[in-house]
Amino acid sequence: MPVGTLANVKTLTPAQLRDTGAQMILSNTYHLHLQPGEGIVAGGGGLHKFMGWDGPILTDSGGFQVFSLSEMRKISERGVKFRSPHDGQIIELTPERSIEIQNTLGADIIMAFDECPPYPVSREEVETATERTYRWLLRCIETHKRPEQALFGIVQGGIYSDLRSRAANALTELDLPGYAIGGVSVGEEPELIHEIVRVTAPLLPVNKPRYLMGVGTYREIAIAIAAGIDLFDCVIPTRWARHGTAMVRGERWNLKNARFREDFQPLDADCPCYTCKNFTRAYISHLVRSQEILAYTLLSIHNITEIIHFTQKIRQSILQGSFATDFARWLNTDNSVELEHG
Amino acid sequence: MPVGTLANVKTLTPAQLRDTGAQMILSNTYHLHLQPGEGIVAGGGGLHKFMGWDGPILTDSGGFQVFSLSEMRKISERGVKFRSPHDGQIIELTPERSIEIQNTLGADIIMAFDECPPYPVSREEVETATERTYRWLLRCIETHKRPEQALFGIVQGGIYSDLRSRAANALTELDLPGYAIGGVSVGEEPELIHEIVRVTAPLLPVNKPRYLMGVGTYREIAIAIAAGIDLFDCVIPTRWARHGTAMVRGERWNLKNARFREDFQPLDADCPCYTCKNFTRAYISHLVRSQEILAYTLLSIHNITEIIHFTQKIRQSILQGSFATDFARWLNTDNSVELEHG
Repeated sequence: MPVGTLANVKTLTPAQLRDTGAQMILSNTYHLHLQPGEGIVAGGGGLHKFMGWDGPILTDSGGFQVFSLSEMRKISERGVKFRSPHDGQIIELTPERSIEIQNTLGADIIMAFDECPPYPVSREEVETATERTYRWLLRCIETHKRPEQALFGIVQGGIYSDLRSRAANALTELDLPGYAIGGVSVGEEPELIHEIVRVTAPLLPVNKPRYLMGVGTYREIAIAIAAGIDLFDCVIPTRWARHGTAMVRGERWNLKNARFREDFQPLDADCPCYTCKNFTRAYISHLVRSQEILAYTLLSIHNITEIIHFTQKIRQSILQGSFATDFARWLNTDNSVELEHG
Repeated sequence: MPVGTLANVKTLTPAQLRDTGAQMILSNTYHLHLQPGEGIVAGGGGLHKFMGWDGPILTDSGGFQVFSLSEMRKISERGVKFRSPHDGQIIELTPERSIEIQNTLGADIIMAFDECPPYPVSREEVETATERTYRWLLRCIETHKRPEQALFGIVQGGIYSDLRSRAANALTELDLPGYAIGGVSVGEEPELIHEIVRVTAPLLPVNKPRYLMGVGTYREIAIAIAAGIDLFDCVIPTRWARHGTAMVRGERWNLKNARFREDFQPLDADCPCYTCKNFTRAYISHLVRSQEILAYTLLSIHNITEIIHFTQKIRQSILQGSFATDFARWLNTDNSVELEHG
């Protein structure tokens, strides 16, 4: 899922986004609550109509953002109070409030409100947060009023395999329509992410979508899929695009690099995207050097297409029974390719 | 002509630009010479191929920019020396150099290198610059090597009708493929612009394209067309878009205005553009408030479509013989609508 924080995937129209091959997108409850407010989104006919995206949408719960972005945070069993970065008002987000907001926004998949303690934390703090996340999930289920929206639970548990296992088993018993693994992209080492995913994903039901939150690029996606993950979201393809960086065949290219100034090839001659069909590396390099917004649009189109295409190729390999060999480059964690996560 | 200074119309792909109804675009010799350099544009197959625009392109000569943007300017009969804002190097632009660069860039229409004294100036200075512009034009014609590119001359003469008339008559005798009126958007009053156009345009051959440089919005376009002008360029539709401003039926709307927050109509229900077909004022207002780049793209699409549509309606009215009555609102300079120029 490309990330469309504020009811748009940055720099792209829905038509451009559709052409990348993206199917589902993620939007952020925390941000939309602050601006424009869920009431205005609902007034516009709900998130799909408001932003002109007729594909599936998932909203996160706001939990992650409250813990990573907001100031003056106060956590209690009831929920979290924080100061609005827009107008300084104190806002309270609780499991009930998060679900009400998500019901109002109207995404196809909504997420339980979870506690994500910022890394590093003690085992005791993680255990407390994981248990509270479970109690909050029960309140989310209780509050949820729109059965056409699928409510996913989130497995927390930090870097502790036993806490992850316990949480995964407890959530599985609730027979939810889908499950997510949360809290893995917040400052942890890539090796730890892989370990958590390898431990947790197999404990979640194979007949339900399994979603690894906030991950990733090539390597993380390949390893997570090998562990059973079906769904990802990541800001990297679009964020890197806005930094003038292209993702090409597993590499990361800074288009400001002098070697691209007179390189009249497309980014990737085999890529089917609008950018690669119409423009050269030299042109994109020129736009990046000139800080022209069009550079970020063209690179976003390419990077999203690239990562979606990567998952399409994995799917093809799985169907052909050749995933482990075709993607050995990514699945073998011992080789020298730099680990990337986000 | 929408303005594509650095080989792109800001925030728009060529596909989006094409859908606005725009036919010809303008690009800037001064800017392209500094970045990426005309050699790289030529290496990419010339301006059309480099930027992916298969419609007509006009390049200006760099004269206007040298006089309005550059520092450490030294003017002589030979040309202009100035300090590059990129690397501080001294660059010399002469009539010969401007034409060579434009020949290398490869636009369909290229412009003579002219002297544009910044306003206000004395009559004596204007007369000197106008006479030098004529001598420079002769050198441009001499240098021009690509007959498939149409070289247009530029009538200068400031606010002085007799200087404008003398220049227009002298240029007409050169039997160029097209003529421009320059130096009218640099700090002059709208009434003076209208007066200059009314005096100058009728002196230029009716069977050649007549181009009013750097103008304009609704009123200036209508009045100039009434005087015989065929061609315009203006940054206003795209610049206003990047300031969150929509051009709607002759009005100028700031989408940050509170009245748009919950306004679920399109900008203009009769507008055929992608923005008006897919998004509401409330959505665009949300994007502008959030400083999302997509806001500027959607508003650029709309604003260019709007001004192109305005000229299409004028064309229709002229063919029907009803221009003067259909556009009385714009042609009558005595009414209270604010004069806008750019």
